[in-house]
Amino acid sequence: MQVIYTDAHRAHDPRSFISRGTLTHSPEMPARADRLIAALRDTDRPVAEPDSHGLAPVAAVHSPDYLRFLEHGAAEWATLAGAGTEIVPNVHPGRHMHTRPEGIVGLAGYHMADTACPIGEGTWNAARAAADVALTAADRVLDGAAAAYALCRPPGHHAYADMAGGFCFLNNVAIAAEHVAARLGRVAILDVDVHHGNGTQGIFYDRPDVYFVSIHADPTAFYPFFAGYAHERGAGAGHGYNLNLPLAPGSGDDVFLAAVDRALAAIAGFAPAALLVSLGLDAQVNDPLGVLKVSTDGFGHIGAAIANLGLPTVLVQEGGYLCDEIEANLLGFLTGFEGARKAGGSLRGR
Amino acid sequence: MQVIYTDAHRAHDPRSFISRGTLTHSPEMPARADRLIAALRDTDRPVAEPDSHGLAPVAAVHSPDYLRFLEHGAAEWATLAGAGTEIVPNVHPGRHMHTRPEGIVGLAGYHMADTACPIGEGTWNAARAAADVALTAADRVLDGAAAAYALCRPPGHHAYADMAGGFCFLNNVAIAAEHVAARLGRVAILDVDVHHGNGTQGIFYDRPDVYFVSIHADPTAFYPFFAGYAHERGAGAGHGYNLNLPLAPGSGDDVFLAAVDRALAAIAGFAPAALLVSLGLDAQVNDPLGVLKVSTDGFGHIGAAIANLGLPTVLVQEGGYLCDEIEANLLGFLTGFEGARKAGGSLRGR
Repeated sequence: MQVIYTDAHRAHDPRSFISRGTLTHSPEMPARADRLIAALRDTDRPVAEPDSHGLAPVAAVHSPDYLRFLEHGAAEWATLAGAGTEIVPNVHPGRHMHTRPEGIVGLAGYHMADTACPIGEGTWNAARAAADVALTAADRVLDGAAAAYALCRPPGHHAYADMAGGFCFLNNVAIAAEHVAARLGRVAILDVDVHHGNGTQGIFYDRPDVYFVSIHADPTAFYPFFAGYAHERGAGAGHGYNLNLPLAPGSGDDVFLAAVDRALAAIAGFAPAALLVSLGLDAQVNDPLGVLKVSTDGFGHIGAAIANLGLPTVLVQEGGYLCDEIEANLLGFLTGFEGARKAGGSLRGR
Repeated sequence: MQVIYTDAHRAHDPRSFISRGTLTHSPEMPARADRLIAALRDTDRPVAEPDSHGLAPVAAVHSPDYLRFLEHGAAEWATLAGAGTEIVPNVHPGRHMHTRPEGIVGLAGYHMADTACPIGEGTWNAARAAADVALTAADRVLDGAAAAYALCRPPGHHAYADMAGGFCFLNNVAIAAEHVAARLGRVAILDVDVHHGNGTQGIFYDRPDVYFVSIHADPTAFYPFFAGYAHERGAGAGHGYNLNLPLAPGSGDDVFLAAVDRALAAIAGFAPAALLVSLGLDAQVNDPLGVLKVSTDGFGHIGAAIANLGLPTVLVQEGGYLCDEIEANLLGFLTGFEGARKAGGSLRGR
């Protein structure tokens, strides 16, 4: 399995994490990717740097206003009297107000859903690099590889076209999906992160050519709270091309794998030209932010099941936070995926 | 001028104020009302306790879900692992997500626009008492008084039907306006707080029987950021019954008084049966949260101009933060109002 990675993620090292009324350190820290890449380098998988793709494939998904905010916001924030070192929003438009303001405090609330995506001076470059990582993995698959793994950090699936959220700024999997769809037509995205991929859902909600399926913990009392419900099926021409499979907190391997089977059957029915996977590792039982109880072995089964779909597959790293098993969860998934591909011979559908 | 006041406001003593990425003490503190009532007691104005009005007039403005959240949220929040002592939201539905969750963290983001309205165990009772203060002042006017002053704390004008924001929980002036409108028909609300009365606007946005006019600092780079623009004129049957007069930061007496004249001319054209005033004192030059430069003398002129409209008038305290002139600004306004009424003789239109 080809791995795409760059150290550029380290420029994003968020300090602020306001949660439940207290201010702590963000769990979305550089050590996450550093530990994963170290574990991958200890295997025989090839690791390559991403190619620069410029801003065009990013701008195909995100709005110009939002990209300007991400690129220049931190510098403007730094001129604000009494401000902290990172952009953290404290006031939001909500359901009732819609005008986009001009000052940086208002823009922060307009373009950020929550306090879990602080923007520092290194965030823009790190997020750009993560998008390039996903795009480069997509290129390998477009060039004929059966699969490639993008070790993206910061993650992306909570980012909307014009709004950051939940550690995410640029939606790496959506950017890669758009890139692949432009060449191959219909694509599917399967999100197995423990949190619903609300940003990805939002970006493709009215699109019939990108089928989004997310397996995640019930958002009733879990991030992202306001989306990820089964009744969200898509809108307009995209109705029927969005599938949410929320699971009860505490669900383990059996329930999760049954949902994976259901998701894969739906994706097979859609018959996409390629699959992109939002690969969170935080459904694991010991993940500090998770509420599900998937085992490390379970990740191997998830990887094998996805591989057995036989589609060209771009694996994009999403969440998964520091715990003893973080490396084992990733390696288990990849080994399960690779083993199933080897056993299954050449790809179905190619 | 009859003053309505109760010490019950002191039960709401917010500790958390997250702004610009830092955590400080809220400027909306009990000393605000304590200082104002002490100054009023040093004059010969009668001070009365509010009468209890029950929940019905509050529920005429606010949604049942929101009222349940306000009443019971703090107790649920206290059971949350690692939570601070007050409800402070950290994740919001924004423009893209609309489902109302069940857990308290999600509900906080659903029912609170920002981090400036922390909810502690005493907030509900204090907010209920403030609504009673406004309702009791309204009763005095309904009973024939030319005017009455409600010393409300916490303030109300940023609270929507289902959302707290900016130090506000129950919209005192909206509750009083609905109470008066139910008896007298058409009413007008004039908001002279330095911040746009976005909650009040939202509550009456589609209503032709309640004319809302707000004079405030331009929200482009000032709270509430996402509303308060001149293009917001009302919706549906309410189109044309909402008037925003945003002023450039730094505007002083001349500009503010010209806006008051314009507002009063518009209100006179509407010919309401009564007027309610959202009386913020924070347009004053030394207010710590303000950006306008109205003088203490200016408040006397504002009060006189409003009195000269000759309408039965309910004055409802909104913002105005601790500074040397906070008492003088209120007494200046009231003295200006009373002097103009005395000079003008009996009320026009009665």
